[in-house]
Amino acid sequence: MKKLGSDGEYRRSCGEYLCDGEKLLNEAVSCGVGITAVFTCGRKPDGLPDSVPVYRVERDILEAVSPLKTPQDFVFSCAMPEQAGKAPEGFLIILEGLQDPGNIGTILRTAGAFGVACVILTGGCADPYNPKAIRASMGAIYRQPFLIMDRDGIAGLKERGVRLYAAAVDENCTDVRDAELNNAAVAIGSEGRGLTEELLKLCDEKIKIPMLENTESLNAAAAAAIIMWEATKKLIQSAAQ
Amino acid sequence: MKKLGSDGEYRRSCGEYLCDGEKLLNEAVSCGVGITAVFTCGRKPDGLPDSVPVYRVERDILEAVSPLKTPQDFVFSCAMPEQAGKAPEGFLIILEGLQDPGNIGTILRTAGAFGVACVILTGGCADPYNPKAIRASMGAIYRQPFLIMDRDGIAGLKERGVRLYAAAVDENCTDVRDAELNNAAVAIGSEGRGLTEELLKLCDEKIKIPMLENTESLNAAAAAAIIMWEATKKLIQSAAQ
Repeated sequence: MKKLGSDGEYRRSCGEYLCDGEKLLNEAVSCGVGITAVFTCGRKPDGLPDSVPVYRVERDILEAVSPLKTPQDFVFSCAMPEQAGKAPEGFLIILEGLQDPGNIGTILRTAGAFGVACVILTGGCADPYNPKAIRASMGAIYRQPFLIMDRDGIAGLKERGVRLYAAAVDENCTDVRDAELNNAAVAIGSEGRGLTEELLKLCDEKIKIPMLENTESLNAAAAAAIIMWEATKKLIQSAAQ
Repeated sequence: MKKLGSDGEYRRSCGEYLCDGEKLLNEAVSCGVGITAVFTCGRKPDGLPDSVPVYRVERDILEAVSPLKTPQDFVFSCAMPEQAGKAPEGFLIILEGLQDPGNIGTILRTAGAFGVACVILTGGCADPYNPKAIRASMGAIYRQPFLIMDRDGIAGLKERGVRLYAAAVDENCTDVRDAELNNAAVAIGSEGRGLTEELLKLCDEKIKIPMLENTESLNAAAAAAIIMWEATKKLIQSAAQ
């Protein structure tokens, strides 16, 4: 159980991941996630299917198992869903080499709020099942479609007619507000290194978020939030009307 | 030196704060920040005014002083600038009770990129001089104007004719795209509790970022990024033309 929280390799070999806290547990239950075990030092959680094993443990066991210094009353494991074969239709965001699990989780959360069809992780992104990513996702890990893809997978998107944009900071970029983002994918690279040459070559066009001169680039999750907002806000407006 | 990194009370009593790494040191030098001491286990940093004391130390000393587990070659302290008496004209963002220093730093960074006139911290926000906030700011801590204000200060903004918006998630809110954000301030509360009743009462109008139904709210830094983008993008466009 403890290793599910600390070891990504082990998570993948088991096909399970670790989550913390009652709020996430309620989310997991309501999303129909396959919960494989619950450790608790309190009462039995509400609404849990009878088939889920619940282990009542002392608090020091919970503290040993949880990746948090001060765990809440529940620590639980979930089965990873099988990865879909291909990305769904609609607006996609591609993250390449983002190594901060908090950013990955925050981007999943924002994607969920704006109805992004799928978040595609490529080129050695942090594990979305890292406990920090799960916490930052605030439950979006259970609901927001995401896929881990290699570069061939990205090339496959293009063959399907998906327009690929590279988020960049050069001068010769299309303003994100002028880009046609329907049936498109926008690739965002790591803050330090940007997108790889290989991924850039696959892209049809570069877009940028205009900023003041002489300013730093944005945090990757902030840039992703603005791009997803620009890509989806027309759809959200029409859905609300 | 070590205490400057770990103790906010001590930072305020000294009027100094701690920073890490060569990138931030270069930024601090180029922004003309009052650097009060540099600890290094390598060479003397470039461009540093002669008046700044540089201490050559062993790596274990650097590791003891730095809040990072694996510090870079430089750890340095800076004098806090005197706080301006009042907020400048222009678009303002007010943060109430945001306790994650990473979010504070990220918001300062985004504010810097979009030319937000001032970031106002109120109601027990995390210390912007916390080392995590400084790192997340990527140097915006040296350039982006910010003020720590109590509620009377916020009320004073209204008296000056600044329109106050509350970022909210209720149904009866103006869409952020329809709000008149010139000479305005938008208040963003903590993700858990939102804005306090007291601050809400001061606000002229509630605005929201439309989202899909049944989704979680956004991370505070993601919400702030979209609001700052919506408020400033017209200005950035016209500045570029």
